[in-house]
Amino acid sequence: MINTNIRALAKELKLSIGTISKALKDSHEISDATKQRVLELAKKLHYNPNPYASSLRRKKSNTIAVVVPEVADSFFSLAIKGIEEIAQSNGYHVLIYLTYESYLKEKKILQEFSNGRVDGILMSVSSETMATSHIEDLHFSQIPVVFFDRVIEGLQLAKITTNDRECSFAATQHLIDCGCRNIVYLSISKNLAINNERIEGFKKALSENNLACLETNIVNCSNDAEDNRNLLFELLKHKTKPDGIIAGVEKLVIPVYAVSKNLKIKIPSQLKVICFSNSPVAHILSPSLTTITQPAYEMGKTAATILFKSILKKAYANSNEQVTLSSALIVRESTDNSGKSAASEN
Amino acid sequence: MINTNIRALAKELKLSIGTISKALKDSHEISDATKQRVLELAKKLHYNPNPYASSLRRKKSNTIAVVVPEVADSFFSLAIKGIEEIAQSNGYHVLIYLTYESYLKEKKILQEFSNGRVDGILMSVSSETMATSHIEDLHFSQIPVVFFDRVIEGLQLAKITTNDRECSFAATQHLIDCGCRNIVYLSISKNLAINNERIEGFKKALSENNLACLETNIVNCSNDAEDNRNLLFELLKHKTKPDGIIAGVEKLVIPVYAVSKNLKIKIPSQLKVICFSNSPVAHILSPSLTTITQPAYEMGKTAATILFKSILKKAYANSNEQVTLSSALIVRESTDNSGKSAASEN
Repeated sequence: MINTNIRALAKELKLSIGTISKALKDSHEISDATKQRVLELAKKLHYNPNPYASSLRRKKSNTIAVVVPEVADSFFSLAIKGIEEIAQSNGYHVLIYLTYESYLKEKKILQEFSNGRVDGILMSVSSETMATSHIEDLHFSQIPVVFFDRVIEGLQLAKITTNDRECSFAATQHLIDCGCRNIVYLSISKNLAINNERIEGFKKALSENNLACLETNIVNCSNDAEDNRNLLFELLKHKTKPDGIIAGVEKLVIPVYAVSKNLKIKIPSQLKVICFSNSPVAHILSPSLTTITQPAYEMGKTAATILFKSILKKAYANSNEQVTLSSALIVRESTDNSGKSAASEN
Repeated sequence: MINTNIRALAKELKLSIGTISKALKDSHEISDATKQRVLELAKKLHYNPNPYASSLRRKKSNTIAVVVPEVADSFFSLAIKGIEEIAQSNGYHVLIYLTYESYLKEKKILQEFSNGRVDGILMSVSSETMATSHIEDLHFSQIPVVFFDRVIEGLQLAKITTNDRECSFAATQHLIDCGCRNIVYLSISKNLAINNERIEGFKKALSENNLACLETNIVNCSNDAEDNRNLLFELLKHKTKPDGIIAGVEKLVIPVYAVSKNLKIKIPSQLKVICFSNSPVAHILSPSLTTITQPAYEMGKTAATILFKSILKKAYANSNEQVTLSSALIVRESTDNSGKSAASEN
């Protein structure tokens, strides 16, 4: 049943009902001049879109999408659990789409959503993502989007993050307090806001402690396990090898530990290691791993709660809420400075 | 455009085109008597369903679903990678649905597929799943299904598994060879064929070595981390505590290691541990963990390859292919019997 107000607008302006409808939704198919005419008359006639019809039109799938780079990382699998809990309490299903850090894959996935397959999207962008039009285009399909963890700063959308800069500062300061003077930050992608926040915190701590941050203090890793292993091998066999490492993502701790073992570099006495990680095995590694642990489950719940506020609104509206939750530095043996953990050194 | 052969059948039998079409698809909406009449005449008139039309009807989403209990387990995240590779080479998207080990959730998810959202399904059943009608119902929607890892024996569908019984036998024999005499198998669910296969291998090895398998040698764990921790605490503080443990799923190794550390039980000298696990951190645990490692990535690829054979067929047909791939026992420090690894004991 077509809203009679739309019918009145169409008749008055001698345009089709479809054109009026699209113009009111700010569709890119309609010229600005036409939109202007439609909006002016709508205002004059005190036209309000029928909220019930709009709600019916939008709520069709009872499904939300979670678009993430991978699920092998504990952060994402925990965040998804939090998202599932909120979705379930709203009677919604969750679909998980993996980008494998590919911008093209992410773009293709988002294009699919224009057909109404999902009612809302929670996403953490790929490490390759720089362009934003594939995300902005979702606006035309009236699909609300909430970012979590890996956000795009420039977009006016809800963002759930952690205090990455602060935590990176605290981790670096901890390493300095433990005696490290040549600390390396293992970076995953220069495109990611989250990564740059962490680098800023790292640099700030070095600077406040009068330590130089040379180009060699930030090492760019990739998504290829073999490449990362080779990179770490080169780094750690070098005569000016670091005495402290901060790994920006969970998976990077594997080559750090494996290569150290291989080169007989003792953690923590010769090399101290901290990792941004939610791994449930951090405390049973050899030696147990000092981590910056994000409130992943809470972040998933918060992001989903904000998304559902948008989904359940009678008219389409994206939230612009910004929530920053706190991560925790959990000190374990890999940064021990007492010499007591020598027995468990690798 | 309706196939002219269907039209001829409808006219001859004085039935609607819809009824003929459903009868040919073996729909549950049509009586057996009617199906019989339709099939007999179809045979007589040398009727062949128009393969192009059928193909068009079936291939509508360019998407396959992967239904798994969780993604926090390395097996599933690796298998999904294998699946994605094959899907991508076929120009398909992959949707991941998580059951969180709930039969009801699994049932709800599968019911959603009847609307043509996906063209095929790869699944590993939940630990609660005993009924099978929710899977059999997919037949009416002509959606092919392939099982991997956690299969349902009774259903005539393709199944990709590993040699679980053999591997469990080999793991148990390895513990016996290392001197263990009181071995416990940590079971995840009595409903799962895979779990029962592993228990059979375990029992066989005990029996061949003249060791009794008492009720207390098989400990049923749950999906709750806290419960499992308490269970392991009770088990390991008991005076008749085991000297060897085989953990049936990856996540169970965490409470085994954590509780051992808490109770000051030394792995491997006082307790030897083996886990069915694809964890990439097994070698950097303290001590490094002996695992039975499944070819997860290969299993995902094989399952997807078989599914696509069905999807790309001109007429709906489920495969009944059975593939068994081999897992590997990878011996590390947690079952070391030489006394050399004492330095890295927890």
